[in-house]
Amino acid sequence: MDAITNLPYRLSLVASILPRKDPVVYGGALRSDGLLPETLDRYRQDGFVCFDRFLGASSLADLTEDMDRVRALAAAGDPLVLREPASDTVRAVYEVHKRSALVDALVRDEALLGPVRQILGGPVYVHQSRIDYAAGPGAAAFYWHSDFETWHVEDGMPRMRAVTAQISLSDALPETGPMMLIPGSHLHYIPRLTAADQVQLSVNVRQSASLVGLIERYGIFTATHAAGSMVLFDCNLLHGSNGNITPQPRVTLSIVYNSVDNRPAAACGAVEEV
Amino acid sequence: MDAITNLPYRLSLVASILPRKDPVVYGGALRSDGLLPETLDRYRQDGFVCFDRFLGASSLADLTEDMDRVRALAAAGDPLVLREPASDTVRAVYEVHKRSALVDALVRDEALLGPVRQILGGPVYVHQSRIDYAAGPGAAAFYWHSDFETWHVEDGMPRMRAVTAQISLSDALPETGPMMLIPGSHLHYIPRLTAADQVQLSVNVRQSASLVGLIERYGIFTATHAAGSMVLFDCNLLHGSNGNITPQPRVTLSIVYNSVDNRPAAACGAVEEV
Repeated sequence: MDAITNLPYRLSLVASILPRKDPVVYGGALRSDGLLPETLDRYRQDGFVCFDRFLGASSLADLTEDMDRVRALAAAGDPLVLREPASDTVRAVYEVHKRSALVDALVRDEALLGPVRQILGGPVYVHQSRIDYAAGPGAAAFYWHSDFETWHVEDGMPRMRAVTAQISLSDALPETGPMMLIPGSHLHYIPRLTAADQVQLSVNVRQSASLVGLIERYGIFTATHAAGSMVLFDCNLLHGSNGNITPQPRVTLSIVYNSVDNRPAAACGAVEEV
Repeated sequence: MDAITNLPYRLSLVASILPRKDPVVYGGALRSDGLLPETLDRYRQDGFVCFDRFLGASSLADLTEDMDRVRALAAAGDPLVLREPASDTVRAVYEVHKRSALVDALVRDEALLGPVRQILGGPVYVHQSRIDYAAGPGAAAFYWHSDFETWHVEDGMPRMRAVTAQISLSDALPETGPMMLIPGSHLHYIPRLTAADQVQLSVNVRQSASLVGLIERYGIFTATHAAGSMVLFDCNLLHGSNGNITPQPRVTLSIVYNSVDNRPAAACGAVEEV
């Protein structure tokens, strides 16, 4: 596990914010299937870019129908299916590109792969794919977090060299707990508390003022948009969402791409490049 | 407790929506200190009206300072002080008009009392006053509810003849879990589940479709506005709010006026008319 000793493990207190050591954009050369230079600059600075109505109406309808099928097929006891504790309804399904030919085609779509390869500087694989059904009335909040922090500490992902494409399959409305992002926070690393300390999280976060300081510095961007829109964001960007007490579901498809050179130390065998 | 047998107690299942029997506006005559006829019509129809920047900047600053004082003075063990379980920070303080001369003056202000007496048709008293500090990072959601339903079932308030003035002491932003209201829902009565059944609430609400049906029919109004703004709403209007994971606090002062003719059966002695 040598690869993950470059960054600190979770601390018992949120004590510090460390500057990012890794590049945000590893490639960056202009390519016909990539992002425009000014869009890439915005990604470098903010840690994310938004694509309004990335999916057309017809693709969106097909995908939505297929995700309803995937959800209905989610078997009891499947460890890659998360359910709401209170209601037993399906909250999330993982490895969705292996459950749906449509998603499998989507993760290989050049409209996605072009920008992703440009950012990550070379060949990539799908590290994770997930559909989330944050349906009211009881969908819980996701507290502020960096995905990388989890993947680094828990899975041994070596570097900040992954990107997530989150596509909304429903309108992301202010009332339905849309994703909130802290632009620029990807340039810092905040070691989190351990899961066992979650109860004390709010106190310590408040006391340490690390997170508050970042929000005061950078503000919060709330990703409200029409169904079919996409946010492409850096693995170390702090983000979170409030819960959703409305009956309007917030459904998102997330595809995490990782550089083939950034495989977690613990990963067994080869990964399938896309 | 005869007075409260006109409406059903909480049922073990959310089975039905009953039409409202009581008037929404008991007085309504045009008065120089009251609402305009078209505003009163909107209140009758929607169950609420909004007043943008009801408090001026100077009153708002004074009140905010005084509420910080009240919060700091909130004593450990005071049964009228609610705290966040995770952090022990003060979430709400009750009877705030008895703790602050400024709030005591505010509840007697003709700018409030005029519309309130016009709606409730005569003299009123302060049934409840409360300051809420819904500060991130951990403020919990308030699920959809009618205040009247609680006061009727738990305190024995006889009729729907009370009104709440909720004044925002901070900007009510989409990200900070602002109050959401279902316009028109005050014309219906939904018996809720008992507190012991809360875990199953989401399932049953979904199955019963009572609430979902009302939202589909009426929609959701989200009360975002500048600090100092006010929402005046009927005691039986369904409302709720998502949580708040941002560090930006959402602070609200709520004053509940009840008609002196609508005192809860269980209330001991006389109430002080304002």
